[in-house]
Amino acid sequence: MMGYTRTRSQTCLARVTGHQGGSQMKRSLGARTVLLPAPVLVVGTYDKEGRPNVMTVAWGGTCCSNPPCIDIALRKATYTYGNILDRKAFTVHVTPERYLTEADYFGIVSGRDVDKFAATGLTAERSEIVDAPYIKEFPFFVECALREVVELGLHTQFIGEIVDVKMDEDMLDDKGLPDVGRIRPTVMVPEIRNYYGFGEKLGDVFVMGRKLRVR
Amino acid sequence: MMGYTRTRSQTCLARVTGHQGGSQMKRSLGARTVLLPAPVLVVGTYDKEGRPNVMTVAWGGTCCSNPPCIDIALRKATYTYGNILDRKAFTVHVTPERYLTEADYFGIVSGRDVDKFAATGLTAERSEIVDAPYIKEFPFFVECALREVVELGLHTQFIGEIVDVKMDEDMLDDKGLPDVGRIRPTVMVPEIRNYYGFGEKLGDVFVMGRKLRVR
Repeated sequence: MMGYTRTRSQTCLARVTGHQGGSQMKRSLGARTVLLPAPVLVVGTYDKEGRPNVMTVAWGGTCCSNPPCIDIALRKATYTYGNILDRKAFTVHVTPERYLTEADYFGIVSGRDVDKFAATGLTAERSEIVDAPYIKEFPFFVECALREVVELGLHTQFIGEIVDVKMDEDMLDDKGLPDVGRIRPTVMVPEIRNYYGFGEKLGDVFVMGRKLRVR
Repeated sequence: MMGYTRTRSQTCLARVTGHQGGSQMKRSLGARTVLLPAPVLVVGTYDKEGRPNVMTVAWGGTCCSNPPCIDIALRKATYTYGNILDRKAFTVHVTPERYLTEADYFGIVSGRDVDKFAATGLTAERSEIVDAPYIKEFPFFVECALREVVELGLHTQFIGEIVDVKMDEDMLDDKGLPDVGRIRPTVMVPEIRNYYGFGEKLGDVFVMGRKLRVR
């Protein structure tokens, strides 16, 4: 795969001039899933026997503001895939730095073979509004009712309508919104397979760009 | 909206015990789009007259590994919405810190009213493989052919199959993959409406969690 990509890349070099005066070569990487950032989302479901499971996904995010919806994409081989089709519900947790090792573990092993709650010492609680469990110790999760199933290939996209968001009191700022500095959320870099924390605040949305408004 | 949410929240408090010995109150925030992180993706399209346009979206990400696919969600009111339906193609750029002001601007004004390339001094180039433009100065973009259109409500999700990824040579690491330290990609925090950079590397995917493997 790498050999193929490298060979192809070398035939696709094109010289372009950079914004900052330098010259850069654009290289073709091939059709690869290297978009940045990817999230670190922990999906909670019940299986047919009512056992709680969690798995970590990097393909997902918000996809509609009204009604508020989240999408996550899973391989059919995952235990969670069947659980969502059965239960028509799931939770999605944001992974804070302090639980990154657990979240990574949730992506390594299958709920078919292992009780991931027992293995990590984390606590499964039942959502009161959707048929799915959540991790009590995680600061932040979203409760979703299944709405759409989109078959794409290796992955199937599940779109869930957000029914509620629950967050630890001490993770909220003074406006009642998530406090990034306290939550310390994480991001994932696909293919290179690294996790990162959030860095410094760079600016305000729909404010930074106003200075470029000419009319 | 905030008043409603705050009132509802106060009736939904539930005491749970935290992992680290403390006690936390979980609060209901209502059905809100506060999942973290959101990306800062700049979508490039041509309009009916062949004029290039760019807009910035926070709802989107990778959604399938094979065939590699990206999803982005847009309101019908956007200029880009019609462009994608017409052209069946789009590009998606990762926003580096040094172009965050431009990317924010792309989300403030509409291509119906403004030539965003002229306003920012950035350069539109034609993709050689999909019917869409890209921003020459951005270090990193993905070329997509439209595959699925999923109507969700306020937003419509467009799923594009990744045809290729192009990246500036000097943004690649020694394995030919995106170098986060050089690209300096950005993330967005919805509702609070802040931008952040990436912070420190926290670990390796599918490695960190191995220590929790018990069998």
